[in-house]
Amino acid sequence: MTTNAAGGPTIGDLGEFGLIDQVRAQIGHNRHVLLGPGDDAAHISSNDGTYLVTTDLLVEGRHFRRDWSGPEDIGRKAAACNLSDINAMGGVATALTVGFGAPADLPASWALEMIRGFEAECAHVGAHIVGGDVTASDKIIIAVTALGDAARPVLRSGAMPGDVVAYAGQLGLAAAGFATLSRGFRSPKLAVEAHRAPHPPYAAGPQAASAGATSMTDVSDGLVADLGHIADASSVAIDLDSTAFVIAPPVATVGEALGTDPLRFVLNGGDDYALVATFSSETVLPQGWTRIGTVADGSGVTVDGTTYETAGHQHFR
Amino acid sequence: MTTNAAGGPTIGDLGEFGLIDQVRAQIGHNRHVLLGPGDDAAHISSNDGTYLVTTDLLVEGRHFRRDWSGPEDIGRKAAACNLSDINAMGGVATALTVGFGAPADLPASWALEMIRGFEAECAHVGAHIVGGDVTASDKIIIAVTALGDAARPVLRSGAMPGDVVAYAGQLGLAAAGFATLSRGFRSPKLAVEAHRAPHPPYAAGPQAASAGATSMTDVSDGLVADLGHIADASSVAIDLDSTAFVIAPPVATVGEALGTDPLRFVLNGGDDYALVATFSSETVLPQGWTRIGTVADGSGVTVDGTTYETAGHQHFR
Repeated sequence: MTTNAAGGPTIGDLGEFGLIDQVRAQIGHNRHVLLGPGDDAAHISSNDGTYLVTTDLLVEGRHFRRDWSGPEDIGRKAAACNLSDINAMGGVATALTVGFGAPADLPASWALEMIRGFEAECAHVGAHIVGGDVTASDKIIIAVTALGDAARPVLRSGAMPGDVVAYAGQLGLAAAGFATLSRGFRSPKLAVEAHRAPHPPYAAGPQAASAGATSMTDVSDGLVADLGHIADASSVAIDLDSTAFVIAPPVATVGEALGTDPLRFVLNGGDDYALVATFSSETVLPQGWTRIGTVADGSGVTVDGTTYETAGHQHFR
Repeated sequence: MTTNAAGGPTIGDLGEFGLIDQVRAQIGHNRHVLLGPGDDAAHISSNDGTYLVTTDLLVEGRHFRRDWSGPEDIGRKAAACNLSDINAMGGVATALTVGFGAPADLPASWALEMIRGFEAECAHVGAHIVGGDVTASDKIIIAVTALGDAARPVLRSGAMPGDVVAYAGQLGLAAAGFATLSRGFRSPKLAVEAHRAPHPPYAAGPQAASAGATSMTDVSDGLVADLGHIADASSVAIDLDSTAFVIAPPVATVGEALGTDPLRFVLNGGDDYALVATFSSETVLPQGWTRIGTVADGSGVTVDGTTYETAGHQHFR
């Protein structure tokens, strides 16, 4: 561990999750906080009801590149990653706020096309932008907060030994698109487009909640990494069956072209905003959900019974 | 108006409010949006209740400077400007989310002290941080969303001819502190501290709502500029009586030292997060509220019957 001038660790030393742990240890809660930090969204009570809230901060060059994606796709994706967090609680998003920072010489049309992307993505769930803030900034910054409703929020902490693990949505497609763009290619188009603007399975979250999902999260850091969050929060072990995954043809194509096992995109890729959940073994899985593993006593995530090296994304690293 | 490569206006051409107007024209609403963009906070209905939401995006070098303010003060102020927006609706904040971007070499202690500032400011109203996001960024970015409750949100649009105008809290103190720091001085301490971490009158918002305030906003851009928002939204004219203001001694001191009329800090300064509201002339003003003007038919804001040149802050300009 390096030290800074003051002698203590930097946030780079702690890493994203280390810093978040230290912050969480420092904050209190009140009767309005039904569920605080640490899940896909918080669950808050107002004087007369309850709602979900989640937030994401996206920075140009780290979360998106203007030479890879147009403004409408960037808006769609910024909306999608927040709507997905509400989806991952089994909820339905109703409203978004958008903080927008940009250099003064940005064409106004860029900002308006980005907003068009936001509204287009929000239309999938019936949500709208309800407020925001605009400021000058050297690089484009997009700060999004999504709000929504859930009759019964599904947490990360409810998985039980004996449960089955299942997913809904795409896995690996956006990661294959990212690998494609990183190497200067522009096809396969389906993969590149999935990286630019993913299509989260918005119906699948509320369906899983209704079907009695015992835990759920969205795949934003990578499937194995995100299932690790469920395993930790639920104090269980999760084993995945590598033969159970449906590998989309463009993922296979990119794997072949780049000499990469396509399963790596599926297990490590994060930007598709698929959902992964656990269900009691008696539950009939809702349509669109595919069984991929099992929950047992223990800890950690394995693939075919073996520890799998994850490459889940961490900031500052 | 300059044009960019694409031939259209830049966001610098449109300015902050011009851009916001164009964005607002583009976004829709649904049954959950009781009050959308354009006031201090939006008012949202969940399936079983209602709540307020507001957001601010703060960027290092524009909204705060690490050489002028410590991390705890920066956290306090970032919280205050959002809690104040809920206050300005007559509401009480219950929860905040914080998006935090920072370079990897930032001492972790800086981030934790900032969070301590957030929690200390939130303690004034009983709110807590309920969620957030952390990302790497060249400059420090703080994106805050505040959530709260109001039995009867007070909008900017309800001022009526014949109403009186009143304010609660400090006016001009933070602006005098900013002028002090800008010239390389560190005193008067009260003014400098007010710039670093203002003290919004959190009790005054709900009190004004209970007393029947017809319109309200917080003073973030400058008193005359912010009253201009009420005048516009309510389609009325507002006249202020310059002799009615209580000029705090440090404001007078800074004015004298810098050769500036202290009334300029009072009328143009924004960072104290005072509240300004209108009340029916029969209303007994709640304690802490001072009458400063009147509402009439017409448009715009005057001081002693004369147009006053505002210097309300606009980004990109």
